Amino acid sequence: MGMTNRFMDQALAEARQAAERGEVPIGAVLVHEGKVVARAGNRTREDRDVTAHAEILVIREAAEVLGNERLNEADLYVTLEPCTMCAAAISFARLRRLYYGAEDPKGGGVDSGVRFYAQSTCHHAPEVYSGIGGQEASEILKDFFAARR
Amino acid sequence: MGMTNRFMDQALAEARQAAERGEVPIGAVLVHEGKVVARAGNRTREDRDVTAHAEILVIREAAEVLGNERLNEADLYVTLEPCTMCAAAISFARLRRLYYGAEDPKGGGVDSGVRFYAQSTCHHAPEVYSGIGGQEASEILKDFFAARR
Repeated sequence: MGMTNRFMDQALAEARQAAERGEVPIGAVLVHEGKVVARAGNRTREDRDVTAHAEILVIREAAEVLGNERLNEADLYVTLEPCTMCAAAISFARLRRLYYGAEDPKGGGVDSGVRFYAQSTCHHAPEVYSGIGGQEASEILKDFFAARR
Repeated sequence: MGMTNRFMDQALAEARQAAERGEVPIGAVLVHEGKVVARAGNRTREDRDVTAHAEILVIREAAEVLGNERLNEADLYVTLEPCTMCAAAISFARLRRLYYGAEDPKGGGVDSGVRFYAQSTCHHAPEVYSGIGGQEASEILKDFFAARR
């Protein structure tokens, strides 16, 4: 299954639960001072909201829980490389670290596509760590799309 | 004042109202079949939500009003060039046309920065029209930041 850690395991659990709800299975958790303060799976269908990606949901929830929309001390764990929208939202929230599982060459915006954190219009970049839980994250996605064909 | 139109005028009115609430003054309206179905000004402070840009708010509201998160027949009017996050959200919502007022070389993601609609990771691009109401949009922003100094 490759390397993982306890926070990424929770993000993977959120991804699996998203699949059960018929959502594209991507999960995220937001960690502050060693504790999970927000967790979510993708809810774009359920919420009828194209912006309801797991990353956006945990950023919004964490801001509410912590009483501050600037999440400078917080770290995000997400099963798939964030898209361009989420990469920018992560920057706006001033997140400290981003850990993502699988790469997404077709839709990612961190190490693929626009590589937002390397652009001059990006005014805060998190530290980025990739690959943790990536194999499992990919398998969850592959199984989901295979089952729908 | 430069050229404008009735929908951009409403977006400019939303921008002015945002300024009165102490928000960075950017406004948007979403038009479907010739009617405004959603309108909003930036609410990042008020909502304590870094994703509460005017564009995101009208996309979410319009999806609710129209009962569909794919807004293929809808057009967005916004006073400032959308940022990278909003440019991607506009793509995900499948908006038909984007009209924006002033350019934003420091933070824009349409004709500045990542130029998202020209990237291979962008899977739907709206038609883009810029400049309408741009001078007035810039003045509203300039006045807002001057008053805060």
